[in-house]
Amino acid sequence: MRTALVVIDMINTYEHEDAEQLLPSVRDALPGMLHVLDRARTKGSDVEVIYVNDNFGRWRSNHDELLRTALDGPHSDLVEPLRPDDDSLFVVKARHSIFYETPLEYLLGQHGIGRIVLCGQVTEQCVLYSALDAHIRHLDVTVPRDAVAHIHADLADAALRMMERNMGADVTDSTAEGLFG
Amino acid sequence: MRTALVVIDMINTYEHEDAEQLLPSVRDALPGMLHVLDRARTKGSDVEVIYVNDNFGRWRSNHDELLRTALDGPHSDLVEPLRPDDDSLFVVKARHSIFYETPLEYLLGQHGIGRIVLCGQVTEQCVLYSALDAHIRHLDVTVPRDAVAHIHADLADAALRMMERNMGADVTDSTAEGLFG
Amino acid sequence: MRTALVVIDMINTYEHEDAEQLLPSVRDALPGMLHVLDRARTKGSDVEVIYVNDNFGRWRSNHDELLRTALDGPHSDLVEPLRPDDDSLFVVKARHSIFYETPLEYLLGQHGIGRIVLCGQVTEQCVLYSALDAHIRHLDVTVPRDAVAHIHADLADAALRMMERNMGADVTDSTAEGLFG
Amino acid sequence: MRTALVVIDMINTYEHEDAEQLLPSVRDALPGMLHVLDRARTKGSDVEVIYVNDNFGRWRSNHDELLRTALDGPHSDLVEPLRPDDDSLFVVKARHSIFYETPLEYLLGQHGIGRIVLCGQVTEQCVLYSALDAHIRHLDVTVPRDAVAHIHADLADAALRMMERNMGADVTDSTAEGLFG
Repeated sequence: MRTALVVIDMINTYEHEDAEQLLPSVRDALPGMLHVLDRARTKGSDVEVIYVNDNFGRWRSNHDELLRTALDGPHSDLVEPLRPDDDSLFVVKARHSIFYETPLEYLLGQHGIGRIVLCGQVTEQCVLYSALDAHIRHLDVTVPRDAVAHIHADLADAALRMMERNMGADVTDSTAEGLFG
Repeated sequence: MRTALVVIDMINTYEHEDAEQLLPSVRDALPGMLHVLDRARTKGSDVEVIYVNDNFGRWRSNHDELLRTALDGPHSDLVEPLRPDDDSLFVVKARHSIFYETPLEYLLGQHGIGRIVLCGQVTEQCVLYSALDAHIRHLDVTVPRDAVAHIHADLADAALRMMERNMGADVTDSTAEGLFG
Repeated sequence: MRTALVVIDMINTYEHEDAEQLLPSVRDALPGMLHVLDRARTKGSDVEVIYVNDNFGRWRSNHDELLRTALDGPHSDLVEPLRPDDDSLFVVKARHSIFYETPLEYLLGQHGIGRIVLCGQVTEQCVLYSALDAHIRHLDVTVPRDAVAHIHADLADAALRMMERNMGADVTDSTAEGLFG
Repeated sequence: MRTALVVIDMINTYEHEDAEQLLPSVRDALPGMLHVLDRARTKGSDVEVIYVNDNFGRWRSNHDELLRTALDGPHSDLVEPLRPDDDSLFVVKARHSIFYETPLEYLLGQHGIGRIVLCGQVTEQCVLYSALDAHIRHLDVTVPRDAVAHIHADLADAALRMMERNMGADVTDSTAEGLFG
């Protein structure tokens, strides 16, 4: 059973409503995210790195376009360090969960992946929903708490407890041993 | 746009792990559930009442069998008052969300239903997940807080705030005016 | 990898539009269907027998009700010999394919089933669509051609060739060796 | 209710198994495809043009990359005239049907589209499966028979009859009046 790192919604212009509340938490979590990304990439082809990202504007399945827009935005300093490389997979999502109306479940199955490590944003929204949708599909979920960013600290804390208690997730941190097997 | 009342997981033997923690909350919420059920039934064919319930044992899509098992269990006093009548629809689910691998979305579409009122259990689990999956599908969600039962009060409280803030749900109570339009 | 026999739409009142054209073919295919059903049941718990059937009338997930309606209909002679027994699984479907908005994929996964043998009706409709949806999900499909019934012989013949050529199905007959492994 | 033109699998390198059998039919159907594409584009924002295309190689949701690969292939003469423009939507699919594990159903809903005109390839495979999956979702389907390409003429003919008879599709031609309302 293989593991994938899933990077959620980090190719972002931060122009949405709650961005001001979110940004400080993203800055805090960036080192944790970079650390798990670095650890995953070091594993080479043993670990897939999969970006799952909201679409902006019209639906064109064009990750070059999405990346360019985010890098041209006011918060490119939060995008640039996490940008996909040539080995990254990339899935565009329409709604909150990384699984809803996306090919992700199919891709994981094809790559023999039974466990996903989630990083990115927002802890009490997309990360929570994705952990649930993974659990419903009998996938194992690990969430390094210092590699996810939130809008509301108290809801994020409740979300992490829900993942741990009700979704069988392993809530750990970015330096945990064995994060990628 | 029509409204449906969705009764979640109340045809139940309460033999699962957390039942002891859940039961007092079910007893507290039972009057609220009965009140919304009564209000929905009074509306006649204007409001569909849809039971969505976990399957027990082998998958036989047999609501008679499920109901009999629950009524024969030790907590029939919590099942009997809420039992489906001949006008109720009934959907069997395999996992937590009322939408996952069930025909519910299709049924709602066929009946022109764009808004669901959720009652039943568990607030911080199936109710939360179902509210999310409804929101993702652009359905309006109303949750009467005195008609849902929880295992952990603090997680239930966080779940209701998540529904209100992040899923556009109307968190209200069982006596609210206009609950069924 | 386990095998299941899937019996499609045989709990039926035959009141739909094309019933007159369908009935002679059902009578022809009945012995083949009974033969595969008998072979599957002989295997005991090694082979799951799963009925997947259209719902009639209101959605009540009630297989007793569906069966009673079909047995009370004018063609009970085509229903009675194929009726589910206490070991059968039963899934209600809303539309043509056995997979669309049903828990079937989930159930097959939980039972470790990677191969399905399809019997029932209609060859060039539900059987074809179900073979396709199984193939898309990387399930192996076997269709005994003497155990499926059609409305239009020429379309049924084309459908079987499509299944064989484009969906990797094994089109065989009800007496084939190794039908259930 | 709006209409979309869906262009299926025309961004293609034609390196798959049956390409030799498919190519003559693609050449025959190219003028019909160009005609419907031109008619759709003339309608401006009234008609969405949506490319739904197989992914080649690793999953990167990158339509620039897919297009470049196809234009660099040996059959760029069949790709170039049909290339997406800046107004086209683009959905990447993993398997045969345009709906399976893609955001297409969601996109159509968001754009208020209730009717799709299908062109592209392969008539007796992806086009057939997509017509079925559209019909199951209660979408109207139109197929101009001179704008779809096949591998086997007899199966394509059966497929078109199935679409017409069993999936309520309007099988017409690329010059038909009212193709885009």
